[in-house]
Amino acid sequence: MLTLAQAQTIMTTALAHAQSAGFKPLTIAILDARGAQKLFTAQDGTSLKRGEIAIGKAHGAVAMGIGSRALHKMALERPYFVEAATHAVGGSLVPVPGGVLIRDAAGTLLGAIGVSGDTSDNDEAAALAGITAAGLVGDTGA
Amino acid sequence: MLTLAQAQTIMTTALAHAQSAGFKPLTIAILDARGAQKLFTAQDGTSLKRGEIAIGKAHGAVAMGIGSRALHKMALERPYFVEAATHAVGGSLVPVPGGVLIRDAAGTLLGAIGVSGDTSDNDEAAALAGITAAGLVGDTGA
Amino acid sequence: MLTLAQAQTIMTTALAHAQSAGFKPLTIAILDARGAQKLFTAQDGTSLKRGEIAIGKAHGAVAMGIGSRALHKMALERPYFVEAATHAVGGSLVPVPGGVLIRDAAGTLLGAIGVSGDTSDNDEAAALAGITAAGLVGDTGA
Amino acid sequence: MLTLAQAQTIMTTALAHAQSAGFKPLTIAILDARGAQKLFTAQDGTSLKRGEIAIGKAHGAVAMGIGSRALHKMALERPYFVEAATHAVGGSLVPVPGGVLIRDAAGTLLGAIGVSGDTSDNDEAAALAGITAAGLVGDTGA
Repeated sequence: MLTLAQAQTIMTTALAHAQSAGFKPLTIAILDARGAQKLFTAQDGTSLKRGEIAIGKAHGAVAMGIGSRALHKMALERPYFVEAATHAVGGSLVPVPGGVLIRDAAGTLLGAIGVSGDTSDNDEAAALAGITAAGLVGDTGA
Repeated sequence: MLTLAQAQTIMTTALAHAQSAGFKPLTIAILDARGAQKLFTAQDGTSLKRGEIAIGKAHGAVAMGIGSRALHKMALERPYFVEAATHAVGGSLVPVPGGVLIRDAAGTLLGAIGVSGDTSDNDEAAALAGITAAGLVGDTGA
Repeated sequence: MLTLAQAQTIMTTALAHAQSAGFKPLTIAILDARGAQKLFTAQDGTSLKRGEIAIGKAHGAVAMGIGSRALHKMALERPYFVEAATHAVGGSLVPVPGGVLIRDAAGTLLGAIGVSGDTSDNDEAAALAGITAAGLVGDTGA
Repeated sequence: MLTLAQAQTIMTTALAHAQSAGFKPLTIAILDARGAQKLFTAQDGTSLKRGEIAIGKAHGAVAMGIGSRALHKMALERPYFVEAATHAVGGSLVPVPGGVLIRDAAGTLLGAIGVSGDTSDNDEAAALAGITAAGLVGDTGA
């Protein structure tokens, strides 16, 4: 199970990465392996439902067991499947990069982080910076 | 009406087929003709919402009265219709192979099985193996 | 994590208990600690949405972290809270006995079983028989 | 508008209050005046949907413009209204203490905090400790 201490390290580092890289305001959601929210931050200036996009990246990854970059590829190749999966999992699945699975060194799934606010590639980079800082392994689906 | 004994034969044989063929961990849902769940199994190692995908294959088949391979063809040719149907039936309709209608020898609809976890073709093969073992007739929509 | 083998022992024993005790047809849902369905059985003769009642007993227990007998007591004493919690968790929470948390010997939550079809007390007895047979500990909320 | 810096002070102080007072594990959600999530924390050991209860306390307060202690009183006196309001606002409204409006010194509504995990009174005390530490004014609905 992802601990709060691990999640805090991930969150703090992801935000620091974004700041030093000059990203736009981000929302970041960290879910545990149950899909339950562990930690969430919306920086000042984010739009009304930006948080739901971040949560959807993380939830889609945990729900399907793959990073959202792989869901992005599936959405391009088989849009009908990703649309159907979105409905089937309850509506929260955003198939663009920035939803990264969090695993421990042994490969056990601990949860996922979803980042939204800058480009998808930058969102994903912030996520990975956080995961690495916690000594964990990010799985983007690439 | 699909009996529990029939459903158990279908489930046991589908899982045995998957194991002997070396499939990835599966979730399998068997619904009766009313769309009510009769039997469900998630093998160890399946992702959080994989079960909802399996249910969506079976539910879509029962809801529309055609195997999910036919729904897949429709999703490629008329995506707007399948998207609308997904909303109309309440969100649980996954238009890829692996949702197979279960009929008796006289053609009466007894229910459907949905399998998810390996390739869609392999999912469907496991479903058919189960239905055949129960002395019933599978309708994939092909 | 609750294994399929553990869930199968629980399911088989709960059904055997019901049969030997002459219970009415049951539906039984077993969820893991993520709230994901692991195993589900509807006996012949159960009503259209009886399965949703069984799932609601198990899901309510996992969602709130207490057996559904405790939710029942709360529903009698503070109905407004249980109604609100039902909405907040997404609609699947049935506050009557028969939803039993499954823990290992060390107290770790593995999941929950929900049984519906006979009296709530009998439903709960079947659940407990199954959990005990698997060498695990049931928490009814009593 | 509630700033992230203000929300962080509220969150940190509320958690510190809970720890020094020996509360059970909490989930805490802070929403801004639009009802958008600003900050969320689930301590280790919280149940699957505890976060939805915390969010429901905060969301109900912002949605109706009164602290959840007032919603609690309304639930006791006019349960039909609170039930209807819960449906009307989309399902996230938990009418027990622990959802506290956050105002600035001039009385402008900045958002709300929802706390769940210990007794409702203790949840509310943690919320108020956080708001006070940020130099803002808590409105419990008392």
